[in-house]
Amino acid sequence: MNNTESLDELIARIVPVDDAAAEAARVRQGRLTKPAGSLGQLESIGTQLAAIAGACPPPVPTSATICVFAGDHGVTRAGVTPWPSEVTAQMVANFCAGGAAINVLARHVGARVTVVDVGVATPIPGDAVGLVRRNVALGTKNLAVEAAMTPEQARAALAVGADVAREAVEAGAQLLATGDMGIGNTTPSAALIAALTGSNPSEVTGRGTGIDDETWRLKVGVISGALARLAPDATPIEVLGEVGGLEIAALAGFILGGAAAHVPVVIDGVIAVAAATVAAAMAPEVTGYLIGGHRSSEPGATVALAHLGVTPLLDLNLRLGEGSGAALALPLVQAAAKILGEMATFESAGVSERDA
Amino acid sequence: MNNTESLDELIARIVPVDDAAAEAARVRQGRLTKPAGSLGQLESIGTQLAAIAGACPPPVPTSATICVFAGDHGVTRAGVTPWPSEVTAQMVANFCAGGAAINVLARHVGARVTVVDVGVATPIPGDAVGLVRRNVALGTKNLAVEAAMTPEQARAALAVGADVAREAVEAGAQLLATGDMGIGNTTPSAALIAALTGSNPSEVTGRGTGIDDETWRLKVGVISGALARLAPDATPIEVLGEVGGLEIAALAGFILGGAAAHVPVVIDGVIAVAAATVAAAMAPEVTGYLIGGHRSSEPGATVALAHLGVTPLLDLNLRLGEGSGAALALPLVQAAAKILGEMATFESAGVSERDA
Repeated sequence: MNNTESLDELIARIVPVDDAAAEAARVRQGRLTKPAGSLGQLESIGTQLAAIAGACPPPVPTSATICVFAGDHGVTRAGVTPWPSEVTAQMVANFCAGGAAINVLARHVGARVTVVDVGVATPIPGDAVGLVRRNVALGTKNLAVEAAMTPEQARAALAVGADVAREAVEAGAQLLATGDMGIGNTTPSAALIAALTGSNPSEVTGRGTGIDDETWRLKVGVISGALARLAPDATPIEVLGEVGGLEIAALAGFILGGAAAHVPVVIDGVIAVAAATVAAAMAPEVTGYLIGGHRSSEPGATVALAHLGVTPLLDLNLRLGEGSGAALALPLVQAAAKILGEMATFESAGVSERDA
Repeated sequence: MNNTESLDELIARIVPVDDAAAEAARVRQGRLTKPAGSLGQLESIGTQLAAIAGACPPPVPTSATICVFAGDHGVTRAGVTPWPSEVTAQMVANFCAGGAAINVLARHVGARVTVVDVGVATPIPGDAVGLVRRNVALGTKNLAVEAAMTPEQARAALAVGADVAREAVEAGAQLLATGDMGIGNTTPSAALIAALTGSNPSEVTGRGTGIDDETWRLKVGVISGALARLAPDATPIEVLGEVGGLEIAALAGFILGGAAAHVPVVIDGVIAVAAATVAAAMAPEVTGYLIGGHRSSEPGATVALAHLGVTPLLDLNLRLGEGSGAALALPLVQAAAKILGEMATFESAGVSERDA
């Protein structure tokens, strides 16, 4: 999106990935010096990268940007998490200072981190060097008792995400990855996944960053109550406004923006997967651009990934967010492209093939 | 091992990993700016690296060497694989020329590849630049009808692997990773796993690089027949000689050598896991040094990993060998060390902790 582009215009720019390039990649995988299919998921990711780029072999996405969207959640007042809301702002300061897990992992994989305040409720401590200040509201309302956002706030946050994606690609990013920070944000994520996949709240609600049985039951009750307020024919944006978060809306816009710019978007854990579910409800073709970074240990992530038809690369029992699982998956994505581009074929290497 | 060291002396140098350093790492993981345990398996690998190094934070193993051991198998004459044996030598040439999957992946992750001929049966085509020529025999005998190796050959191949590990560490490797090439080598691997874990051959025998039902039944029959020749009290070296392969014996020696040198050893798929099972039968403390690179799609791998108590990092449906799964896991291992060394603590970053 840019200053004059509407959400509908952005969505209209999301075209299906290139099936012919995918087929060329599948044929090439079969000529490389290895048994057919023996590189498993690395082969399917390579094929997807070819389909996204419209070229085989696909370019290696060496320039990657991880965008971490931060927002606060009024639902923390319902007691769904043991962490104080101020931690969102404190962690944003930590991201800007380079001391958080996502900073360590992004440096390790050679990716850039962009931190965006789209809805933090409390002042960010310190200098917050490099912070992208696009605050739409000082946190959401408490979805336990009322709509989390107005439709206007949801649209504004979507636009922030789409803008950040466009700006990152204009600055040279060949691959985008999602990150999030928001104390309490597993509750709106579970609510979005339940609403958009038609699942029962108890199936998609997990333990977040660590809660007990009583808090889990409270969380399920809060989600059920919020979903009961939705009209049966609610649009994705209406669902997002009612139960979503500002950073989740921005992530949905970011995913739409990445797909509109024809770059792969590596999605992180349950928050990103919830946002991807929103994006796919608005623009089904977006799923062709999604690469699953990891399988969050939150149960809603698995439900939403199956709904999206995305098989994540990693399953390391991560439940941090920040984009940590997406960052860790980046070398695998790059490796998949290099396999298609750099391996010898049976012919070029003089290697015999198997008996028919 | 060196020229004067016996296998028993090598094994005597394998000491338990450092529990105090592991405990220091666990305490530190709890002080870093993230919910406790939220980095999942990355935290347990970081703790293991501290235990191996005897230091917290552990050094980041940036200098890694993947050693690919190649050998041929007489059992191919029993019809257990559709691939011709000459492919072993052809792929060794491909490794030396840099065109195989392991070369692409090793370059990608910044690791060195060392290729060792420990038992190739046919001449290596071309120049084979850099090949380490330590051929013990021109392939094994056909385990379908007789012992694959003499005990002397098994010991000689173990010594080759231990020597290669020692030389790699002396040349600066801070981490070793296993690779293998040997047409037909899933059959001896399944036989070793069945023998050393007490499993039924049908439970641990898979499809290798792609075989049909009839060939699978033949393969199970071959393995059962070979195991029937073993004495109930056979030693690990006797088991290795009867059913193992030259490159598998070398891998077992390589793993013992890595543990004796106090470096982490990332093991690849089912061939490496079979070799690790042999090594652990000879020196149980070796398991503290093992990091599982990936879960091979061969069923024997999962049986052996459970036997060893190793949880692999990746599960990408790989079934190539060469060290491909170990190479892909390397960035995760390095990331685990960096998390312990580079992340801010709650105190240093001024981040609030959760309510008690």
